[in-house]
Order: sequence, then structure tokens, then C-alpha cells
Amino acid sequence: MLGLTAARAAFSHPPAIHTAKRYEWRMASAVPGSLPGAGTNAVYLAKIIETMSGGRIVIRFFGQDQLSPAFETLNLVAEGKAEIGYGSPYYWRKKHEAFSFCTNIPFGLNAHEFITWLQFGGGELLDELYAKYNLKPFPAGNTGSQMGGWYNREIASVRDYKGLKIRMPGLGGDILARAGAEIVNLPSNRILHALQSGKIDAAEWVAPCDDLRLELYKAASFYYWPGWHEPGALADCFVNKDAYASLPGDLQEIIRQASFAAYNHMWSEYSAKNGIALVELVVRHQMKMKRFPDRVLMDMARLSRDVMTEIANRNPLSKKIYDSYTAFGRKAIAWTQISEEAFSLARFLIFSYL
Amino acid sequence: MLGLTAARAAFSHPPAIHTAKRYEWRMASAVPGSLPGAGTNAVYLAKIIETMSGGRIVIRFFGQDQLSPAFETLNLVAEGKAEIGYGSPYYWRKKHEAFSFCTNIPFGLNAHEFITWLQFGGGELLDELYAKYNLKPFPAGNTGSQMGGWYNREIASVRDYKGLKIRMPGLGGDILARAGAEIVNLPSNRILHALQSGKIDAAEWVAPCDDLRLELYKAASFYYWPGWHEPGALADCFVNKDAYASLPGDLQEIIRQASFAAYNHMWSEYSAKNGIALVELVVRHQMKMKRFPDRVLMDMARLSRDVMTEIANRNPLSKKIYDSYTAFGRKAIAWTQISEEAFSLARFLIFSYL
Repeated sequence: MLGLTAARAAFSHPPAIHTAKRYEWRMASAVPGSLPGAGTNAVYLAKIIETMSGGRIVIRFFGQDQLSPAFETLNLVAEGKAEIGYGSPYYWRKKHEAFSFCTNIPFGLNAHEFITWLQFGGGELLDELYAKYNLKPFPAGNTGSQMGGWYNREIASVRDYKGLKIRMPGLGGDILARAGAEIVNLPSNRILHALQSGKIDAAEWVAPCDDLRLELYKAASFYYWPGWHEPGALADCFVNKDAYASLPGDLQEIIRQASFAAYNHMWSEYSAKNGIALVELVVRHQMKMKRFPDRVLMDMARLSRDVMTEIANRNPLSKKIYDSYTAFGRKAIAWTQISEEAFSLARFLIFSYL
Repeated sequence: MLGLTAARAAFSHPPAIHTAKRYEWRMASAVPGSLPGAGTNAVYLAKIIETMSGGRIVIRFFGQDQLSPAFETLNLVAEGKAEIGYGSPYYWRKKHEAFSFCTNIPFGLNAHEFITWLQFGGGELLDELYAKYNLKPFPAGNTGSQMGGWYNREIASVRDYKGLKIRMPGLGGDILARAGAEIVNLPSNRILHALQSGKIDAAEWVAPCDDLRLELYKAASFYYWPGWHEPGALADCFVNKDAYASLPGDLQEIIRQASFAAYNHMWSEYSAKNGIALVELVVRHQMKMKRFPDRVLMDMARLSRDVMTEIANRNPLSKKIYDSYTAFGRKAIAWTQISEEAFSLARFLIFSYL
């Protein structure tokens, strides 16, 4: 009987014999492949796609400035000069402001809520936005919650931001500018010196593991938390639509699932390294950690709401994405409050037994 | 020139021509495939493995009791009667108590911290445990944070657990038993009637989306939070080592990455559905939500520490896993406090603008 069953199975599924077509792709990354976190994750993503495909997709990696300047990466892939790109949606905000809403929103969704929205709420809106540029996007990484930044002045009220020179890109910078800060743009390798020389009074980079590497503790008095402006920045990859359409279904699915796996991998790597770096900053470098006062956070939340609403109202697609995000977010946040947040607080009520 | 480059590329990577071997695998799941969440996720995992493999692995799914009783699934795969299994590590705690520590620990790590530990801290210990049964495990799903349960009596102090008849499996049940509760084991489809008839005073199942489907709101006065006993239960798949070794490298990587993708997929699906179900329970069914009082949570944390330490000390491998978990956990929790938790609280300081 067993023999007969096996024969039937073989009949219904004849062994596949095929000449596997090989795809030689270029990945254009807006960040260098050597950058720990976002950069190494791009290389990891390329590698697992190649491994899962059994070498049928071979991806040559090109980091920032190798094929184009960072902010031109989207165009490059749109035009088919590379088949796959990697970056963060807010890099393309000058092309379309709606990209701002697709990385993270101040006081908005955390890394888990955000990927939940993309998978079960608004993912098709990200598709709609990238489709304007002949691209198919996939969420592919997240920094997780970031820190509030390095300060050489104490922040007791929102008025302390008036005239404060601070490195803070993106939507967070827009909000601090509204509060009266002077936003200074600087690449990562110039932050330390700018703090030391007094060219800036404060700077935000990412989180303990990155900030430790840049040695920012050498030049600042306070390390502020929480990072209300970046609750978890998305990294994504985007594939030229024609290149994607040329793939068989198995390779399309490999790219899709590899991206989800890389999303989690990058977020977990950040969390693991941040836990270690935090101890080093506090114990070894005696860094003074400070929480933003409640009043400052409350004022920043009000400014965030105003600025986000203004951006949303400037364009129909921005509005559509923002409305989806907020409608989903209201339910997600209510659930987070009585689950993750309440658990986290209960765990530390008087002690953690770990 | 371009022609020559293309010719060189073709030379260095000759097109692969191969007769793809087909693997017909059985997946033995300890839960029914129709069970939303854990069960549908097993079917999803089987499907994405099959799709990514281009049909080279065809997985026939067998739900709970189809090949063996639920708690025998581990043996079945160990013996090669199915190539891949699916369940939750604590199902196998009667075989080895260390499995208890690999699903979740009361007041321990949340869903994100737990996968971070498995990827960057203690994953090789899960390998060591399953290797005793000739299996290779992969984390493949998580419920996310659970609820505290349905109660027909108010819980004002730990003394209220004395004699309380409650359905609560696993480590949570061990701890409530220590507090004097009477633990009653019941399958999901009998919980509602047991609450209605007074056979039990309280019951824990999973989270709003599952609890709503079981209509538990019809038979209980209070819906308690947070679920300190289950901060996020792991689902995993485990592959017979000989079957795994017989696969080429690309299919091995497909199984590995599909599992990580499924981990996130299940967790996000739960969160998305819980947000919707919570509104329905509160608005439509007027369910009374209650937070466990601080004193109860503090007493439960102390009991948890005692019970976990006792279990850890009974066996060297349990101790090794617990020590890895707690050492990693101390750093992870410190980071969570000033990042995810602090952000979550800041977001709701006076209002959420979403």
C-alpha cells in the first residue's frame, strides 16, 4: 500500500527539471555597508536572498555614493540602473512629502505597532506611494526606539529650545525648529567635534550602541531619554517593478519573506547591542542619564500634532496615509497600554527578579 | 565593452542546470490548523516554505490528533514519523523541565526581548535542548502579551487566590497554585460553560481576539490586565535532524528565515486583531476591565522568582538556560525601560494625538 501511495504522490508531483535562470542584480544602498545596524543589515538582506535562492539571484552590493549620492538612490532604482535599492523612506521626502510618514512619526507607533500597521493596516498605501516611481517596497529593518539625544544644556521647559543649536534631522528637527531651535545638519563623523567646539549645543544620533561608537559621551553633559521623535525608524528595500515582474513566484516570495526576517533581525540586533552599550555608558563612562520633564514631553506632543496635521493636509496621498496610520494607531495604542506597557511597568513595580 | 563584461559574468557564474529533488514532508502540529493565531500560523509557515522553495518542499499539514495526540508531537518528529513539527516548547515540559523556560517566563521577557535573546543570546541553548531528541528548533510565532484572565471574584490581595478555582495552565498555574488556588485543566471549548455553571471562578485563555471568539465575556464579571504570567508565548517548529541534514543549503535557509518571518507575522496578526477586539469588548459588550492591584502584582513577582529558581535548580541544563536568560534579561529590561516603556508612557502623558 505504501508503495502505491508513493507512486501516486510521484505521479501528481512529477520531479521538477529546469534550467534555473540566474539573475545578477545590483543593490544600491543609501547607507554604507560597513555602517553597523542599518548598513550591515542591507548586506545581510542581500546575503539571505542569495542563499535562499540557491545562488539564482546574485546581488552585488553598492554602498552610499558608489552608484549615486545617497538621496538619489530612489531615482537610480526607478530608472533600472540598479534592480534593488535600500534606505529609509524619509530619505525621499523631497520627492514626495508622504514618505515622511512612512519611516516613523513623533509620538506615533513603535517598531512593533508600525510593522503591524504595514502588514495588517496600511501596507498597500506604501505600495501606492512607491508605485509612483515604478518601485515595489518591502519593510526590511528597524532601529527600534531611539534616544532623546546628547545635550550640553539642561532642558527644563520648551523655552530652553529657543536658540539651541541642535543636530536633529527629519520630522523631529521640524518640531524642534517650531519650538525655536536652530537645526544644524551634520554627518555622523562630525558630531563629536561640533559638540566639543561649541558649534552645536546638542545632537541626536541613534541609540546607545551607535552613540557609544561615535564617543559622544566625551563631549556632552546629559544623555536624554526617551526618544519621542523617533520611536523606531524603518529601513526598507525597494525593487524596480520590471525587475520584480521578471522573477518567478518563488524568488518574489523569497524577497518578500527575507525582508520581514531582516526587519526583525536588525531590530533585535539593535536591542541586544543597546542593552550592552547602555551599561558601558553608565558604569564605565559615568554618563548622566536624564528623562525629559513631563511638561517638555507634553509640549512636544502638541507641537508634533500641529506639524503632522499640517504636513498631512498639504497633499491627498499624505492625508490618506496619515488617516490610515492614525485610525489604526488609536486601536493599537489602546491595546499596547493594557498589554506591553502595563506588563513592562508591572515587571518593575518594586523589583525585577531577573 | 558591455558585451565582454556580460560574457565574463556568464563565465564566472555558469547557469545552474539541475534536477530539483522534491521533498514530500509531513508537518505534525500540536494545535489544529483551524485555530486562529497559533494554528493558522502553522499553515502559513508551511505555505511560505513551499512557495519560497518553488514547490521543492511540499508540506502536508496534520493538525492536533491527526498523527498523534498533541503532547506526543515531539516524539513523532524525533522518530521521523513526520519531518517537521509545530507547537510550543512548554508542551514538552514533561519530557524535560527546561522546555518550560523556552516559551515564556512570568514577569520575564516580552515578545521582542525574547526573540532578541534567542537570536543574540541563548538560541544555541534551545538547539542543545532539542538536540537531545534529534531535533533542530526554530522560533516561529508569538502570541504577544496576553491578558490577565476572566474573573467572577474581585482580586484585592494575594489571599483572594486561596481556594479560587481557576483554569490557568503552565508556569502561571504553578505560581497561582503556590498562592493557594485550585488549578482546573480544561480545553478551550469548555471554559465558557465551566464559568457559567460555577465549576470554575476564573479562567485565563489568551488575549482579546481569542477570548472574544470564545464569548467569555458572557460569563465573567471582570477582565483583568496585565498578563504578568505570559508576556508573549513562543510558538516554534522543529525539524527532524536527519531530514534537515538531507536538505541542500538553500532549503535549510528557507526554513530558517521562513520561521523568523512567521514569528513576526503571528505576533503582528495578534496585535492587529486584539486592538479591534478590545474595542468590541469594551464598547459593545460593556466589559469591565480591571488592572491587578500593585500589591497583588508584587506578591506574584516574588512567588514567580521563588518557583522559577526552584525549577532552575532541579537540573543542570535548566539552570544553564535560566542563567543565560536572566543575565541577558537584566540588560534587555534596563534598555526597554528607558526606550520602549518610557516612550509608551510619554505618548500618553496627557493625550495621544493619534
